[in-house]
Amino acid sequence: MSNVHPIRQTNDDEAEIRQAIENFSEAFRAKDLEKIVACYAPGIVAFDLMPPLQHVGIEAWREVWAKSLPMMQGQITLEFRDLKIDVSNDLGVCRGLHHFRMSGTEEVDVWLRWTACFRKMNGKWLVIHEHTSVPADMESGKALMQLKP
Amino acid sequence: MSNVHPIRQTNDDEAEIRQAIENFSEAFRAKDLEKIVACYAPGIVAFDLMPPLQHVGIEAWREVWAKSLPMMQGQITLEFRDLKIDVSNDLGVCRGLHHFRMSGTEEVDVWLRWTACFRKMNGKWLVIHEHTSVPADMESGKALMQLKP
Repeated sequence: MSNVHPIRQTNDDEAEIRQAIENFSEAFRAKDLEKIVACYAPGIVAFDLMPPLQHVGIEAWREVWAKSLPMMQGQITLEFRDLKIDVSNDLGVCRGLHHFRMSGTEEVDVWLRWTACFRKMNGKWLVIHEHTSVPADMESGKALMQLKP
Repeated sequence: MSNVHPIRQTNDDEAEIRQAIENFSEAFRAKDLEKIVACYAPGIVAFDLMPPLQHVGIEAWREVWAKSLPMMQGQITLEFRDLKIDVSNDLGVCRGLHHFRMSGTEEVDVWLRWTACFRKMNGKWLVIHEHTSVPADMESGKALMQLKP
């Protein structure tokens, strides 16, 4: 918790955003499409790990989740590390590392860079922008999926 | 310009952040290390196109620029598209596509996803977090450097 801006950012703000992230994680682990979609604002702009470059609007973003969740057969484990949160009134910025794992026939174990920007709308913190990625190796052209912090 | 939050976000806020982005672009085109570094806050957390996963703090980030600028021999062209900006008091969120081109012996022409989060500190909007990436193709393991919007 940063104490640099005590007037504009309270422990409550940060705690509420951390709870919103926990709610998202729980919905993702449960592969619950409706609860996942409920974490996002109507105007969401998502820069996802996979193509295309961007997804604009909740309907496009819902479609991505609706298509990808059925392909995730294994058990999902999410861990966020080094999360830093800044808040000013109803705008929040969160960045950190996201350790995503999936067990089963197709094992996944990847550390992602994760940025989520929130707006408090009708008393609820919703994600207005999300950016998820791994770095790129310029020489080989590879997406670096094996990096660890 | 979003008119959803007219009290907390003024035309001035957005104009100032757009000017900060223009200042950064100018410094980058001029390959001016000091002017580039002056765009960032001391606590910058940068998720860059290239590894490692993250750079934390202005000294680490300065080192990245100090090493990479001399390798950029060609003329640099930057274009930002679809920039959306949200502001609340002294916190600003900007996301959009960044068309980066470099001419010369090593031609570069890539569309990047670009997120920049700003804090107004001592009257100046500084970047506290930047996230730059291209999507990854899961099947080939490639970083997708040829995507166009």
